[in-house]
Amino acid sequence: MRYELFYWPGIQGRGEYVRLALEDAGADYLDVGRGSPDQDLGVPALEMYLSGDATPRPPFAPPFLKAGDLVISHVANILQFLAPRLGLIGEQEDPRIWAHGLQLTLTDFIAEIHDVHHPLSSTLYYEEQRDEALRRADLFRRHRLPRFLEYFEQVLEQNPRGAEYLVGDEHSYVDLSLFQTVLGLRYAFPRAIGQLDDDLPKINALVARVAERPRVRAYLDSERRQPFNEDGIFRHYPELDGEH
Amino acid sequence: MRYELFYWPGIQGRGEYVRLALEDAGADYLDVGRGSPDQDLGVPALEMYLSGDATPRPPFAPPFLKAGDLVISHVANILQFLAPRLGLIGEQEDPRIWAHGLQLTLTDFIAEIHDVHHPLSSTLYYEEQRDEALRRADLFRRHRLPRFLEYFEQVLEQNPRGAEYLVGDEHSYVDLSLFQTVLGLRYAFPRAIGQLDDDLPKINALVARVAERPRVRAYLDSERRQPFNEDGIFRHYPELDGEH
Repeated sequence: MRYELFYWPGIQGRGEYVRLALEDAGADYLDVGRGSPDQDLGVPALEMYLSGDATPRPPFAPPFLKAGDLVISHVANILQFLAPRLGLIGEQEDPRIWAHGLQLTLTDFIAEIHDVHHPLSSTLYYEEQRDEALRRADLFRRHRLPRFLEYFEQVLEQNPRGAEYLVGDEHSYVDLSLFQTVLGLRYAFPRAIGQLDDDLPKINALVARVAERPRVRAYLDSERRQPFNEDGIFRHYPELDGEH
Repeated sequence: MRYELFYWPGIQGRGEYVRLALEDAGADYLDVGRGSPDQDLGVPALEMYLSGDATPRPPFAPPFLKAGDLVISHVANILQFLAPRLGLIGEQEDPRIWAHGLQLTLTDFIAEIHDVHHPLSSTLYYEEQRDEALRRADLFRRHRLPRFLEYFEQVLEQNPRGAEYLVGDEHSYVDLSLFQTVLGLRYAFPRAIGQLDDDLPKINALVARVAERPRVRAYLDSERRQPFNEDGIFRHYPELDGEH
């Protein structure tokens, strides 16, 4: 099946979590948002679904995935659907529920990371909420950043099947999502995450392992991988990373 | 099976979304957090799981549900697990995926509602971020509140099986979650949601319908239902509701 991913062009954003799974599995997919409106792709194609004109089950926001007639919204929901079909999770129910819980914790983490530069509203520019962002960033670096990362470090440490994977003894989609989150944090908060580096040996090993997966490496080196930038979730504003 | 719900005592919070499903289905459950530490219940029981001492798969935060040996975290994950067992969702995969997507949109909405009074960090008191909260509340009332509510109104309107239910032609756990969210908004933002009242006839009808379900009504009238208060997600601070 050819999957159709719907996400805003120009940023990695939340769509990247789905892209990474599709790329790692070598799946056939169309990145609709990055196509041309001349070919019925691009932003107008997204908007047709968001408006409810294309489906009686409109998504609230991108990313969403079209798989045959099915329209699936929210990263965690999409990955839960795709993972068994792409070989990115095992067969049993228990580890799947555990994996989904981890993915939802990452979802919360990612929302908090985004809100560091947008503490008031996504309807305002960063520059319009910079003072509030500075206050939030300080609290984020001191409390939430270490809290989330130490949690995932602990999950790896306590995995009875070994610290190489978050779920059981197999690579899964949750490993890919943690990988992407850490790359984003290294881009946005190099100073803050650098200070935690010694406390995160298992996470760092996981990130290094995922980066060496052949299809992940090929993808990161390709033009399909858009660079991090200051329009996405992970933005490098030095002042929010504690530089004065 | 007797389910064990783990959530902080003293507030409805996110735990309430799970409680409502259990109560509506007449399920047997233990509300661990509200029990006594003398009986190995209460907050120490929660902390044992959060610390990772009780399970190699520690939740990041409450609520979590124990079902036999399984520990399930995050409201949407718990409800996805419970709903088929409690008769709160149909058998088919497509509507289940749609229901889960709607629940995850509610999850995002609830997080935004919470962050109105905590725009900087949950590690600070409201009073320490009141100025930022005032700014955020204004944007929330003008943009995000109508945006989310109009979305759910549209979902009801566009439901090919009729506007009575969010998913297909049957009552589901997502209806319960929307119900709880609207009750919370009516408590926290009576003025703002009152101004939208004429635009939300389908939502209002759904809320009235759910309130008349016998077990929901019995629950709301019982001592098991804790009142809304200013420690939970939905807090009534008149200044955040646009009163000057």
